[in-house]
Amino acid sequence: MAISKNNRRITFLDTTLRDGEQAPGNEMGPEEKLKLALLLEAAGVDTIETGFPASSVDDFQATKMISEALTTSSFATFSRALAKDVKIALEAGGVSDKHLVMLVATGSDLHLKYKRHITREDGLREIAEAVAYAKSEGIKNIAVGIEDASRAEQDYMEQIIETALSSGANQIILADTTGYSTPESFYELIRFVREKVGEDIKVSTHCHNDLGLAVTNSLEALKAGADEVHATLGGIGERAGNTSIEQVVAFLKYKGEEYGLETTIKLDKLYEAYLALKETIKLEDSRMQPLFGTYVFSTAAGIHQQGMLNNPDTYEYVKAKDIGRERKFYVARHSGRSILRYLFKELGVVPDDSLLDYFYNKYISNEHNGTCYDTETLKGILVQELNSTESEFGEAI
Amino acid sequence: MAISKNNRRITFLDTTLRDGEQAPGNEMGPEEKLKLALLLEAAGVDTIETGFPASSVDDFQATKMISEALTTSSFATFSRALAKDVKIALEAGGVSDKHLVMLVATGSDLHLKYKRHITREDGLREIAEAVAYAKSEGIKNIAVGIEDASRAEQDYMEQIIETALSSGANQIILADTTGYSTPESFYELIRFVREKVGEDIKVSTHCHNDLGLAVTNSLEALKAGADEVHATLGGIGERAGNTSIEQVVAFLKYKGEEYGLETTIKLDKLYEAYLALKETIKLEDSRMQPLFGTYVFSTAAGIHQQGMLNNPDTYEYVKAKDIGRERKFYVARHSGRSILRYLFKELGVVPDDSLLDYFYNKYISNEHNGTCYDTETLKGILVQELNSTESEFGEAI
Repeated sequence: MAISKNNRRITFLDTTLRDGEQAPGNEMGPEEKLKLALLLEAAGVDTIETGFPASSVDDFQATKMISEALTTSSFATFSRALAKDVKIALEAGGVSDKHLVMLVATGSDLHLKYKRHITREDGLREIAEAVAYAKSEGIKNIAVGIEDASRAEQDYMEQIIETALSSGANQIILADTTGYSTPESFYELIRFVREKVGEDIKVSTHCHNDLGLAVTNSLEALKAGADEVHATLGGIGERAGNTSIEQVVAFLKYKGEEYGLETTIKLDKLYEAYLALKETIKLEDSRMQPLFGTYVFSTAAGIHQQGMLNNPDTYEYVKAKDIGRERKFYVARHSGRSILRYLFKELGVVPDDSLLDYFYNKYISNEHNGTCYDTETLKGILVQELNSTESEFGEAI
Repeated sequence: MAISKNNRRITFLDTTLRDGEQAPGNEMGPEEKLKLALLLEAAGVDTIETGFPASSVDDFQATKMISEALTTSSFATFSRALAKDVKIALEAGGVSDKHLVMLVATGSDLHLKYKRHITREDGLREIAEAVAYAKSEGIKNIAVGIEDASRAEQDYMEQIIETALSSGANQIILADTTGYSTPESFYELIRFVREKVGEDIKVSTHCHNDLGLAVTNSLEALKAGADEVHATLGGIGERAGNTSIEQVVAFLKYKGEEYGLETTIKLDKLYEAYLALKETIKLEDSRMQPLFGTYVFSTAAGIHQQGMLNNPDTYEYVKAKDIGRERKFYVARHSGRSILRYLFKELGVVPDDSLLDYFYNKYISNEHNGTCYDTETLKGILVQELNSTESEFGEAI
């Protein structure tokens, strides 16, 4: 996992506080957003999206507070392609090289017709005007995000990109707004845009997870030449959510070398930020969410414990310690004698077969109530039983 | 989504009741497993794995009950590569063409050394003996699952496959036991095996989700020629879980035509089975799990509602009704005036700007407490307010 000179360093824009926050149940106040922004900064996130300042007093305030507090990360604000939105975003976040102004372009005819009730020409005009306004106010980093890009016609997308760049934008974001893309089609979209804009323009991806492919599509985008991934902690966001930042970061840490890609974001710090988010928005526990779920570094299965007690690599490729977490064993109906032998060894006891059978039958194979002990609890039970049945088992302990 | 003659029909083996059930917190009793098996059968799942009969009385009993109850689906039992395990599996499930006996082969040297403490030769011998035993008992469908196949040496894997097939197995399962594979490496693994075994041998995939890629790797396997996917409801299973059956099925429904693949499994019935599973193992709610999460067909964002009220396709590619679910709108700080106009229209009220502003400010833009109303609740509030403030707003309702 060493940083190599030959790898391409991928940047991340975290949109937990905007696209993540906008889904039902995820509302956060400015103070809460500030706290999370600082944790994201500590994890090394390159750019932190603060909100949509023109949409509410809370988003305005959050942007103001976060933009003043960050010292190493940049921040981004979300605006419709309207000078009045940009004006409010600049009032909230100020004019600086740390402030990325993101403007939404309407990519698909479906959205132009049914959501916006405007023509393609109207769409190009608003982009030209809003970008020019931001530029005139002294903003250097201006991104045009093409909403519903995966369902846009190629010729119109080319026109949007030409308009954006000629007006002064230096970044294009391709959004798979409804989770429509296949890995192949998203790869092709990014390759097409990458070739069109050249190497000096930043290309970012913004994927949704409706078919469970947001992470995969983001990775395909990186393979196709994208520079940046938009993502959220734990993948929170509209409907089935956005790309999970931790999953893309973990892929780059474990597999990036194979693709010539790398990141400097710290997974363990992302986990800290996730825990704070979880508390803030009362996010449900998940027993199996990749990297962050309750039991993802745990097993109760005898067939796994047998291997892991000898060498954790047998069933642990992703390492608990890389995420700042701990490996745990549980004892339940699926456990075997291996975990009992291990616990006896820890207690300094050499069990004979009858002792092992006794405990195996009592606490494992005949455990029909779905009870799941952690190993410390079961160790305590073993000590108690061994002491109270000393006469039966001899001076075992 | 019509079934085409030219598409390849993919089959599914559901391992919710075995690999899913084996993770901490997921224990189920035989009666509970029976109920879920019947729901999986109703959804059209081809093969239902019942458990590991040699491992516990409960798994034995569940296998017996399920094998007797199924009328259209086949069932599978899990055994180590030991005649004594197979013997118990046959006692539980009986000998019939509906019974797939699955035997575990140890694929990687890491597992041979640290988990099994056996040599490669020992590994081949046990496979040969266990397959031959199952065959001699009259079992027609015998699968050899190569555990940790993604970290196995190619030459040894070839030997396992040759041994399995020459002993009488007619199916090979490739397991990415630790979630180690990249999409590319898993594609290559399946392609290699597919070419080696020819078209008459069934090739199945069994993926884990440690890096969030179980669904993607399963899809890559299908593109590479695999016949069958092992998966679980909601992706439950060891650590970060297994492949989510509903996500692969949904991909095939929405995108299968592009790849020449199809399935006959019913998504809405899978959702019913998932709800029963959720209740059985007290699975946590998830607000955004693809297809099955609480809010995946909901939005509170004004910018989305504005489009969806005109045409749901704007922000809904995956259709709620395909999963047997309903689209819902919520009203919170991120909502806009569109949803208010819509509710007024439903009430037969034509609001003027001041009325709209009053409600917008009161229930949306100044809503700092994170309150999220469903539309029915807010409609009730509107009626109440309009009635009680009749003098102020005139005879609005």
